[in-house]
Amino acid sequence: VNVGGVQRRTIWPGDSGETVLVIDQRDLPHRWSVATLATPDQVFEAIATMVVRGAPLIGVTAAYGMALQCIVDPADAALKAAAAKLNAARPTAVNLAWATQRMLSQLVVEPLARRRERAFAIAGAMAEDDVAINAAIAAHGLALLRELPRRLGRTRLNLLTHCNAGWLATVDWGTALAPVYAAHAAGLDVHVWVDETRPRNQGASLTAWELGQAGVAHTVVADNAGGHLMQHGEVDAVIVGADRVSAQGDVCNKIGTYLKALAAADNGIPFYAAVPLSTLDRSVHDALRDIPIEERSGREVTHITGIDAQGTHREVSIVPAGTVARNPAFDVTPARLVTALITERGAVAPSFERLQALAGQEVAHA
Amino acid sequence: VNVGGVQRRTIWPGDSGETVLVIDQRDLPHRWSVATLATPDQVFEAIATMVVRGAPLIGVTAAYGMALQCIVDPADAALKAAAAKLNAARPTAVNLAWATQRMLSQLVVEPLARRRERAFAIAGAMAEDDVAINAAIAAHGLALLRELPRRLGRTRLNLLTHCNAGWLATVDWGTALAPVYAAHAAGLDVHVWVDETRPRNQGASLTAWELGQAGVAHTVVADNAGGHLMQHGEVDAVIVGADRVSAQGDVCNKIGTYLKALAAADNGIPFYAAVPLSTLDRSVHDALRDIPIEERSGREVTHITGIDAQGTHREVSIVPAGTVARNPAFDVTPARLVTALITERGAVAPSFERLQALAGQEVAHA
Repeated sequence: VNVGGVQRRTIWPGDSGETVLVIDQRDLPHRWSVATLATPDQVFEAIATMVVRGAPLIGVTAAYGMALQCIVDPADAALKAAAAKLNAARPTAVNLAWATQRMLSQLVVEPLARRRERAFAIAGAMAEDDVAINAAIAAHGLALLRELPRRLGRTRLNLLTHCNAGWLATVDWGTALAPVYAAHAAGLDVHVWVDETRPRNQGASLTAWELGQAGVAHTVVADNAGGHLMQHGEVDAVIVGADRVSAQGDVCNKIGTYLKALAAADNGIPFYAAVPLSTLDRSVHDALRDIPIEERSGREVTHITGIDAQGTHREVSIVPAGTVARNPAFDVTPARLVTALITERGAVAPSFERLQALAGQEVAHA
Repeated sequence: VNVGGVQRRTIWPGDSGETVLVIDQRDLPHRWSVATLATPDQVFEAIATMVVRGAPLIGVTAAYGMALQCIVDPADAALKAAAAKLNAARPTAVNLAWATQRMLSQLVVEPLARRRERAFAIAGAMAEDDVAINAAIAAHGLALLRELPRRLGRTRLNLLTHCNAGWLATVDWGTALAPVYAAHAAGLDVHVWVDETRPRNQGASLTAWELGQAGVAHTVVADNAGGHLMQHGEVDAVIVGADRVSAQGDVCNKIGTYLKALAAADNGIPFYAAVPLSTLDRSVHDALRDIPIEERSGREVTHITGIDAQGTHREVSIVPAGTVARNPAFDVTPARLVTALITERGAVAPSFERLQALAGQEVAHA
């Protein structure tokens, strides 16, 4: 993605071969900064504190964390311990465990002396794969989006997205926003309603920023506004990413996604989740019971960070002193509310059979 | 309501008989301040800028605005012009026009010389009526709440509310929170999930504050969290206020209410709106088409005010410079999603016939 005229990714290896560099997303949109990660512990911290976030990106970051582990100690036990620790950085997105498991299984078969080099090569390939997967999601999603204006009998297409599932959530392109960028590039008149996405405001801070960089028309709204916009015909489709998808196609995504899916269903509006197949967890059959929902600090609800009129970063409290807050970070949208899952192998209405068929090919490749 | 040991209302006439005093709700929860309103224009400004807010309270405030007009010029034409201006301060809550119309019809039949005295007396009576109405809503709501723990087979009752429909939204007691206070006083183990209510955070700033003053257990959550809490059995009922209710019982209330009603219906949880009959607009049959939805400044979405660690009020921006935001302030919850309307004359499942029957008595009284 082009940022201020420079082609960027969200993660890349350092020139020394001993580090990995990431955009520090906590500082966006007000400050651009790059963080250098040199140890598995720094990778763990970067994921846990959301220097990097987004299911696909934390997967690739964890893969590089395994590569950094190979510099310190590439032995089987050390790699397994590193994988277990990285997996615990955030509990909900399955891509994290998927990535470390993939690294682990491919590294333990290598001689110790080759592991470091191989680890960086595999992590790099996973980053490339992510870009290619998102390009495929873009193409399949674009086909769906092209249908909408035709059906609506007008040219402008109004999409609503929640949280950030754009290039900042991946290595490049994004999942939910990949079809949006493809539509914009193809000349479609696309406009995006950006849910601010409380409590961390990833929509207001990240999605608004990257859509602005890409020149895609967008309007930020409070998370509360989506239902009203849908009731008044101002939303043609909802498109989001996911952190974990169950075997049946239930979509676990950023808290509040379920409410938008209910409103979409109530207003006859298609609801799409754009997901790489690495986000599918075929071991989960009861999504509400079996997907661990991360509970983050209530302080993310009670305190908000932004910049004042002088451009200084400030944190303010919006509640009476001593107020208790709860902060579940994800919710589950049942498959019955999902029109289609847009994967790198095509868009499918969610069902156990269809997802098994898609994922079966994955197993054959592994 | 008791604030720091002092019995308070949200609005009261000044000792001089030439002013009305209100709590400046823009400063809560971080600062307690009282604003003195001496002219109808100051009343208009106080309503438009949300020094006072909440459908019942802005009705009573507008009534006092008509009384202040009688000091300046009590002639019919001047009163009609003042009513028209006050009605335009905020478009959605019907209580505003209801109150000015009531003042107007009772004042124009009085001789000019008596209008000022009568106006303050009528406005004062409307304030007393509001307190009595809310006490009745408290009693009818309490009866519903008493049923819930019995049905659930446990003592703790978890309610969810959106925005502020407490004593700060009325003269005293509140609408949605009146049954909560009654339940707390009756010894029920009640806990309230407080939606922060973006973009103006009336939940985080006002509801959390007044529940804290009253000693009612509560937890602030992002507006996005309610669906997840309901899916996991953590919400036993939703209770909100309203700014206008259609002849069929559709509930127009703070933006985001509709999303919570959808989630309540999807999870089999009762959804109650507590409303004085002055909030019923029998002229509205198509709520989505005919209730004007106030659009407020996008700046309320993009900028947030709170206090920093030093206790200084600060406003911060959470979006990239130049970002456009939209800010519809209310939405409509269709009657099909409403379990019951709790009015001063009892709780009824919403339907045209039942509301006609209740409101018919109102007409007989007028």
